[in-house]
Amino acid sequence: MTDRWVLDQSAIPSAWFNIAPSLPEPLKPPLHPATGEPAGPEDLAPLFPMALIEQEMTPQEWIDIPGEVLDVLRIWRPTPLVRATRLEAALGTPAKIFFKDESVSPAGSHKPNTAVPQAFYNKAEGIPRLSTETGAGQWGSALSFAGSQYDLEVQVYMVAVSYKQKPYRRVLMETWGGSVVPSPSDLTDVGKAVLAENPDHPGSLGLAISEAIEDAVKREDTHYSLGSVLNHVILHQTVIGLEAKDQLRLAGIESPDVVIGACGGGSNLGGISLPFAKDRIEGADVRLLAVEPESCPTLTQGRYEYDFGDVAGMTPKLEMYTLGHDFVPPPIHAGGLRYHGDSPIISNLVKNGLMEAVAYPQGKVFEAAVQFARTEGLVPAPETSHAVRAAIDEALDAKEKGEERVILFNYSGHGLLDLSAYDDYLNGRLSD
Amino acid sequence: MTDRWVLDQSAIPSAWFNIAPSLPEPLKPPLHPATGEPAGPEDLAPLFPMALIEQEMTPQEWIDIPGEVLDVLRIWRPTPLVRATRLEAALGTPAKIFFKDESVSPAGSHKPNTAVPQAFYNKAEGIPRLSTETGAGQWGSALSFAGSQYDLEVQVYMVAVSYKQKPYRRVLMETWGGSVVPSPSDLTDVGKAVLAENPDHPGSLGLAISEAIEDAVKREDTHYSLGSVLNHVILHQTVIGLEAKDQLRLAGIESPDVVIGACGGGSNLGGISLPFAKDRIEGADVRLLAVEPESCPTLTQGRYEYDFGDVAGMTPKLEMYTLGHDFVPPPIHAGGLRYHGDSPIISNLVKNGLMEAVAYPQGKVFEAAVQFARTEGLVPAPETSHAVRAAIDEALDAKEKGEERVILFNYSGHGLLDLSAYDDYLNGRLSD
Repeated sequence: MTDRWVLDQSAIPSAWFNIAPSLPEPLKPPLHPATGEPAGPEDLAPLFPMALIEQEMTPQEWIDIPGEVLDVLRIWRPTPLVRATRLEAALGTPAKIFFKDESVSPAGSHKPNTAVPQAFYNKAEGIPRLSTETGAGQWGSALSFAGSQYDLEVQVYMVAVSYKQKPYRRVLMETWGGSVVPSPSDLTDVGKAVLAENPDHPGSLGLAISEAIEDAVKREDTHYSLGSVLNHVILHQTVIGLEAKDQLRLAGIESPDVVIGACGGGSNLGGISLPFAKDRIEGADVRLLAVEPESCPTLTQGRYEYDFGDVAGMTPKLEMYTLGHDFVPPPIHAGGLRYHGDSPIISNLVKNGLMEAVAYPQGKVFEAAVQFARTEGLVPAPETSHAVRAAIDEALDAKEKGEERVILFNYSGHGLLDLSAYDDYLNGRLSD
Repeated sequence: MTDRWVLDQSAIPSAWFNIAPSLPEPLKPPLHPATGEPAGPEDLAPLFPMALIEQEMTPQEWIDIPGEVLDVLRIWRPTPLVRATRLEAALGTPAKIFFKDESVSPAGSHKPNTAVPQAFYNKAEGIPRLSTETGAGQWGSALSFAGSQYDLEVQVYMVAVSYKQKPYRRVLMETWGGSVVPSPSDLTDVGKAVLAENPDHPGSLGLAISEAIEDAVKREDTHYSLGSVLNHVILHQTVIGLEAKDQLRLAGIESPDVVIGACGGGSNLGGISLPFAKDRIEGADVRLLAVEPESCPTLTQGRYEYDFGDVAGMTPKLEMYTLGHDFVPPPIHAGGLRYHGDSPIISNLVKNGLMEAVAYPQGKVFEAAVQFARTEGLVPAPETSHAVRAAIDEALDAKEKGEERVILFNYSGHGLLDLSAYDDYLNGRLSD
């Protein structure tokens, strides 16, 4: 019996899928942070190359992937689709659990799917240097890898407390040639001001974003790069769901019953679910499920309104679910899910009843992660483990109801650089 | 253009390849440590299940892989064969560089290829518990993973200094359910005796082997498991070379010009090279190359003679290249290559001129590793980086001579849990 579907490099999708033109309620434009007026391409030009600004706003459904991008994506794509037969057996469920294994990328997560085209488009428009922020380090790793492929300098502002606690992530970025400083840093005015107040400031994602944006705005040679939330980022991630559709067909599945992804800013969830969202909008019987931490319950408890993307209010305002841009989530292990807002596309789908959301405490999440590791062999990232938890609960619900439910979830990243979280869980040091 | 060959699960080899019957000079038997007489199956029975003892001594060329083993191998096998086109371009070489990516296993290296069948045969013969030693942690991780698949207890004696320096490796083993203690431990008489002398003893691989063997000998429910050196271990690794042969054919290559593997005990090198060694013995023009660290130059500077496998002289004596069983290698980062001896099969091939050996200092090895990471995207383990170094040097030599040399090397494992070594290299803290 086959339980793992691999595809040749020729099966990488040749275009990204844009859900925007299919949304029943159209997306509203971003608003300029100062004027409150709709922000146009010229407002975004200091930060992003024109190709990405166009993708952010395009009404086109399909966007061709440049050959130079495909050349790098095929280092690890197509990624495998796996049926979790060992987990199914352990659960005694009639459900079929499939996962899309995005952990096989060089950086160990789905993040390079967008880091690579972002680096490419900047390089193509003559930009030799990118600035970005990173919390847990996944995004900074992905962009450093992408920078090495196109010979771009990458400057990463890494939240100071992570910089100290996760030295391996820093070294990984440096191995690919990235420059990493703890944020707050003395490279920016905002960083200097914070350090003057408190030289031991632990940093925050909002502050690191502000530093990375200041860096890009002040330097002609530098653009800013973001790893989630924005439309063009989610767009680049749709290769995940497009490949999964082809692979499910090989497995004899016309349509899954539920598609699941962990949700922080929304990029891995959007990547796997948006190609199915179109089917759903057209009446197909497929549920889409966002999984978030109880400690940062943006979709399940946030307000739907315009808000800033960062703490300092330097970004355009986006219409989305938000806990307020000054919300400070507790320091849970799934650092990638600690974001006050959410992708406008994901928010739009939830608001319009096309996507469900559920929140879990981290103890139940790690319980699922360990069960997955001991059956399927793979050790999931803390973020990914939220999707694992939800997939297991769907499978148990299907067992109770005697349903052969087909569950698809995004295995967005491995946990090999997050093992201290497992140490805490296994030794009873984890709090919810 | 394709530069990565993946195969369906149905293409996993159905039998392991045994080179022993093809060797021009037959292997000599192991000798009993006390009597010095040839050791028979009954001498090994307290340590190993009969199926593995038979494989250790069999004259059969092909050994069927049990279905229950294939069921687990296909979690990650077949592994990809990749052509390193980006590295070739950076080197400006006419050579074609292929690597077999064994880093995609759950434990991140080739080690599960033998951990899985070893766990299976023990389980099949009613043994519920295995003991083993681990240095850097790769082997202990692999056996803990395999134990979780067959519901076996795994007791790992981890060299104390590694236990302290590599907590992530320990946590990985525990996540899969393995029990890990620092060696020397108070679980064994030999450990207690050492601790009585020096409570802060840093441990050594030789000492950890002695503890694991004592554990297995003293308990009826426990067998011992070894991750390299022995014939049956190398046998299980031949799936690597067998798959690579099929994949090279898909890439239009009848035979590579040189096959390269890093060599500590010899298991990843044997795995990729033995199927080609038979061709070589039959007259094919294929070179086989073992790569070792200058600091532990077993094949390049050792003596060919009978020696013990451990420091304490508890194992049978094997005919092999050895630096002496009391040799203490310096603490280089490639912990998996710090072994005084070598596989008798590999030693036999080198002695008879069928395989070459070369030794490198670790600075040149990490230089190659970083070049590989910045071109191919993957961050190799320090052990694997020895093979990367040799592959690059072969490609540069081919460039000088204007040859379209076909180079195949074993990418035996990733370095994501060895990033402190990269930190030392990038910051000039590495000594040769």
